[in-house]
Amino acid sequence: MSNDIWQGAGRRIHIQEVGMRDGLQMEQAFVPTEEKIALANALSAAGLSKIEVTSFVSPSAIPALRDAEIVMREITRVPGVVYTALVPNVRGAERAIEARTDELNLVMSASATHNLANLRMTQERSFAALAQVIATAQSAGVSVNVSLSCVFGCPMEGDVASEAVFGWVQRFVDLGVAGITLCDTTGMAYPSQVQPLAAAARARWPGVLFTLHFHNTRGMGLANVLAGIAAGVDCYDTSLGGLGGCPYAPGASGNVCSEEIVHALQLMGYDTGVDLAQLIAAARRLPALIGHELPGQIVKAGRRLDLHPVPADFEATRVRALARA
Amino acid sequence: MSNDIWQGAGRRIHIQEVGMRDGLQMEQAFVPTEEKIALANALSAAGLSKIEVTSFVSPSAIPALRDAEIVMREITRVPGVVYTALVPNVRGAERAIEARTDELNLVMSASATHNLANLRMTQERSFAALAQVIATAQSAGVSVNVSLSCVFGCPMEGDVASEAVFGWVQRFVDLGVAGITLCDTTGMAYPSQVQPLAAAARARWPGVLFTLHFHNTRGMGLANVLAGIAAGVDCYDTSLGGLGGCPYAPGASGNVCSEEIVHALQLMGYDTGVDLAQLIAAARRLPALIGHELPGQIVKAGRRLDLHPVPADFEATRVRALARA
Repeated sequence: MSNDIWQGAGRRIHIQEVGMRDGLQMEQAFVPTEEKIALANALSAAGLSKIEVTSFVSPSAIPALRDAEIVMREITRVPGVVYTALVPNVRGAERAIEARTDELNLVMSASATHNLANLRMTQERSFAALAQVIATAQSAGVSVNVSLSCVFGCPMEGDVASEAVFGWVQRFVDLGVAGITLCDTTGMAYPSQVQPLAAAARARWPGVLFTLHFHNTRGMGLANVLAGIAAGVDCYDTSLGGLGGCPYAPGASGNVCSEEIVHALQLMGYDTGVDLAQLIAAARRLPALIGHELPGQIVKAGRRLDLHPVPADFEATRVRALARA
Repeated sequence: MSNDIWQGAGRRIHIQEVGMRDGLQMEQAFVPTEEKIALANALSAAGLSKIEVTSFVSPSAIPALRDAEIVMREITRVPGVVYTALVPNVRGAERAIEARTDELNLVMSASATHNLANLRMTQERSFAALAQVIATAQSAGVSVNVSLSCVFGCPMEGDVASEAVFGWVQRFVDLGVAGITLCDTTGMAYPSQVQPLAAAARARWPGVLFTLHFHNTRGMGLANVLAGIAAGVDCYDTSLGGLGGCPYAPGASGNVCSEEIVHALQLMGYDTGVDLAQLIAAARRLPALIGHELPGQIVKAGRRLDLHPVPADFEATRVRALARA
């Protein structure tokens, strides 16, 4: 794969929306069920490749997503779009499969400390629980993706060795998992790390579909996407409006913003398959749903060629300037 | 110049601070003169290559910078650091030279509409005025840099033809100007445009020192810097804390943030010569000086390896998890 990423030349890049799960799960406001369904439908219509619709966790653990079944059942399914959901255990898998979820997204952390702090389990116990979920999905004929957290660093441990990451990838591949997401959970990834790590993963498991999941916490989100593209990865998790913060960095940006990434990649000649105007329209509706502004810049600044009128006194200025010239 | 920009391998990149001029000129608050001097001294001490200290415009036009002479005279000069200032005309040039400014920075726009709207002159009249300034600087033996606005697009005209840009570059080069800054005044630049344009400029004028000046208005700032690095450009304008908004995009980010760019480039193995801890310390002092928060993420999120403690209940969680494992 060439490092010449500056000209997209029509290369297809898949944009996978995670805002409805990774974003809404952190919000104080409960977004009404019908609004969630309308949002998922708007995202499907805009042409996103995959939508993480919700999370089949315990409703008491994440009340914001307590309507998982209704949302997943009532969205309008667009052919070709993959509707995925986070599933923590066999009970969640059964609920998700019953609600006709296309793909189960499983999460554990590449950092032992983060796994304990966040999931309250050892990594071995997480793996054993996810192995049961994978078996459940396989007997139902439902796809599985595993999202590994803290692949590019842990906010408590620091760097995470790539061999530790790759050890977990191998164990999931051995269970028959065909999709792996390498997650930069707290915005620690940087391009010089992303490019070789993603290239090494693709070289070692050519049959696995890798997704990269970046946060813009330290302003490196788009640069990391470009480093991933240079490494040959075609699938990226993004979040509408940049929904979804980082508990370790109050006030900082969280997930990379869907419409910012699509805007940039389209300008660069990549084919995202997304209708940017529809995506921006969906993003504009978000602040009213969640009760606060979002970090995404495109809603504030407009697209690159959304032009501005000349100032009101422009004609008078021009006449005076020409008279003096 | 190789497109393999992912590993910096010690390549020197010069970071040129514009916040004190391009940022402060837009602020409502008057930053006290002694605070400006302290800020410039902190930036010099942090290792920035060049500092645009102020603007020698009419004090009534930009009251925020009405103390230009005192600031330029009283800062502590660090050998090797270039202290530059914006100069609009011969009167400004005389003031700047009298105050021992190392370099005069001249501005006109590559967009005819933007030049009229912003400078209230035709481009020809701007060029004639700047030619006088250049002559004044040359007889005093002071360096000149010309910053061309709207090189990557005009918020009113849209795209600006690169041949129009290069026509202005040639005319300034013909006057003996050795430094040209290609400015993305309102955040319209994108990497696929930056890389070939910057490469073409360097190929055509190998003796000219080109700087790139980007805004992060649409989230492409760092990606554009990397595209410029791929094209062989070594000098970048940045602004502490991301100071300096864009009048065409209220609420959106303005200039690329100095500490974000330095943080990213250092992680990537580039040599910026900057002490990042000192730069962040200077950025932390800004909100108190100007009375509002800034878009820079590093002040909020910390550096990549500024680690966080484990949660208070971590040890109990760990003991329970191990008992269950």
